[in-house]
Amino acid sequence: MNTHALLRQLVQKNGSKIVMYVADGLGGLPQQPGGKTELETAKTPHLDRLASEGVLGGSIPVAPGISPGSGPGHLGLFGYDPIEFLIGRGALEATGIGFKLEEGDVAIRANFCTIDAQGLITDRRAGRIATEESTPIVERLAKEITLDGVEVIVRPVKEHRFVVVLRGSGLVGNVHDTDPQATGVPPLMAVAKDAASQKTAKICDEFVAQVRKLLAGEKKANCCTLRGITGKPSIPSFEDVYGLKAAAIAVYPMYKGLASLVGMDIIGEAQTLDEQIDALQGVWDDYDFFFIHFKYTDSTGEDGNFEAKVKRTEEYDAAVPRIMALKPDVFIATGDHSTPSMLASHSWHPVPTLLWAKNCRCDASRAFGERECVTGGLGQFEAKHLMTLALANAGRLAKFGA
Amino acid sequence: MNTHALLRQLVQKNGSKIVMYVADGLGGLPQQPGGKTELETAKTPHLDRLASEGVLGGSIPVAPGISPGSGPGHLGLFGYDPIEFLIGRGALEATGIGFKLEEGDVAIRANFCTIDAQGLITDRRAGRIATEESTPIVERLAKEITLDGVEVIVRPVKEHRFVVVLRGSGLVGNVHDTDPQATGVPPLMAVAKDAASQKTAKICDEFVAQVRKLLAGEKKANCCTLRGITGKPSIPSFEDVYGLKAAAIAVYPMYKGLASLVGMDIIGEAQTLDEQIDALQGVWDDYDFFFIHFKYTDSTGEDGNFEAKVKRTEEYDAAVPRIMALKPDVFIATGDHSTPSMLASHSWHPVPTLLWAKNCRCDASRAFGERECVTGGLGQFEAKHLMTLALANAGRLAKFGA
Repeated sequence: MNTHALLRQLVQKNGSKIVMYVADGLGGLPQQPGGKTELETAKTPHLDRLASEGVLGGSIPVAPGISPGSGPGHLGLFGYDPIEFLIGRGALEATGIGFKLEEGDVAIRANFCTIDAQGLITDRRAGRIATEESTPIVERLAKEITLDGVEVIVRPVKEHRFVVVLRGSGLVGNVHDTDPQATGVPPLMAVAKDAASQKTAKICDEFVAQVRKLLAGEKKANCCTLRGITGKPSIPSFEDVYGLKAAAIAVYPMYKGLASLVGMDIIGEAQTLDEQIDALQGVWDDYDFFFIHFKYTDSTGEDGNFEAKVKRTEEYDAAVPRIMALKPDVFIATGDHSTPSMLASHSWHPVPTLLWAKNCRCDASRAFGERECVTGGLGQFEAKHLMTLALANAGRLAKFGA
Repeated sequence: MNTHALLRQLVQKNGSKIVMYVADGLGGLPQQPGGKTELETAKTPHLDRLASEGVLGGSIPVAPGISPGSGPGHLGLFGYDPIEFLIGRGALEATGIGFKLEEGDVAIRANFCTIDAQGLITDRRAGRIATEESTPIVERLAKEITLDGVEVIVRPVKEHRFVVVLRGSGLVGNVHDTDPQATGVPPLMAVAKDAASQKTAKICDEFVAQVRKLLAGEKKANCCTLRGITGKPSIPSFEDVYGLKAAAIAVYPMYKGLASLVGMDIIGEAQTLDEQIDALQGVWDDYDFFFIHFKYTDSTGEDGNFEAKVKRTEEYDAAVPRIMALKPDVFIATGDHSTPSMLASHSWHPVPTLLWAKNCRCDASRAFGERECVTGGLGQFEAKHLMTLALANAGRLAKFGA
């Protein structure tokens, strides 16, 4: 029996409120060995106070040494085993532009490419065509392509990337990529991985055939390849597994999309952290669980900008009093992964995690930082257990076994 | 391969002695955040000395955030995955009154109820009839009910609760409960969950029919429902998996029962901790492994009595010198779960654990308490790994692989 099966048996409802306040890419590295990380450098008086009253630990997003993308990172935080619950690239790309997939949809990440007169690929990414140039081409495809008995939705992403969603009955998304990963050869035909996906494969080929016809006169992008052809991920909802009515308050489409995949309601159109907390106040009485996503600790880390990440961490801390003023029963501050500015990328390092609740068994920590988390009372734990801890601390789990 | 399969390959016998000294519900919480827990408050000079010579850690009974009952709590300590090895309610109830289930038995937790002239339930618990009144009724059932080709054993538990054990060939215990969880409706018929359990279901219905007939004139309890209909759990024995001849020295029937389910011999009829240690001395030469169960750290915790739990913890500590005088090779002090008096219930918090052995790699700990355990050398670990650590420290495990 897995944890979700167990939790379904144990969850009980009460009026408690849980806040999961996520600083994307929160964990970091010092600029010199022995120095302070971004979080340790930042002045975070509010989180430090909660650290002294609460319990700290290090969250391992997937497994030791594994650097996750945003998909597995958030799924782990939401209590889903990120290796079991995979989100296909097509579905993640659609989710990332804020597209809401429906049951039975097949989502595809498409790349513009160029082919020569013989139909052989000359550039797999169409020279990384500028977004301003690719967007009108995508719009033309969206307008002109029609497929027999299947609705086709085409949306721009960035540069050579776009998203295709097929909607109709009998579509299954187990189809191989058509990108041959080489030039001088033609794009591959779409090959179904199982009998149920043959209809989808046929439609994919028809789609590409129409693209070639429509774009025959285009210099910069006259064909496309299809990747990550996948159905809507089958993920049980927060309500279903945890009995929680959950609200997501995020600025960026990717995180709204990930939250909606687990059945959270997406609240408001906030563009700043302050507006996010306004939105939180507005729906406080209507939900049990609140996911608040703060992006800029990750983007500054990705930029390799240590000082900027420190500042953004201070901004993240400064919003804490407004959240705590709402008197949540359980408050969690964490990240979906580490993004050390010294690496300018996502990393595998455990993510500093703070859990504050009335009966959390406070540890000796006095500040929120990577080193304090190593000796914190939560120890190092797989991120997927965090939701169980949140529910336990909220008094929402019955005893297991007599 | 699971851990048991691995251990079966690696276990080797020697003359070593392992003591697992369990204080039920040992872990606690401070009365104020930052304060001392019951264990930290208690004067435990003997355990503190062993802590400074040994290694500490936090045992997670089932999974982070899960509060276990006594069944899963002890199975974890005994090295059995408490989610994989479930003990059905009927079996646990029979075990809890000290009844020794045999292979092929079906155990049932029964509740007296009242029904009206139409056979509709008027009270699912027969007004929580007093034990003094229900016991003679159970004794009457035990005497008068006879079932075709099946031995039936009926034993009182408490108030409206009693235990029924069916013994005979061809009985399988996958049968749905007959309690409709509502009044104004008749009790349910027993429905088998699989073909093999149909005989059991039929016998259950016949049992209830006889109960109704016999109790037709009873005012306070004239019918019963059956719950948790289950076979004897299929649990490999200590001897089988670990190659250990194991003795259990407990006062309460529930813990004797749990120990007997994993094949331990139940030693003596001790009523006090001192008598338990007498029993331990008496069988020291006859066994490899000794489980000593101390109940009162849990019961005082359940009572919400911080001071009483502190005193009971000191009593638990005071018996340590007599145990150590026997010179065990491995000594473990731990609990099956936490029972913080602040919560007056079992909880999910990691359980303070002390392992003392010649080569245990002593850590920096100087006292036995929750905070010391957080930074102890065993880290935080799932309880099911403790037996492997015990065997290793006893020199009872060969190297894995060449």
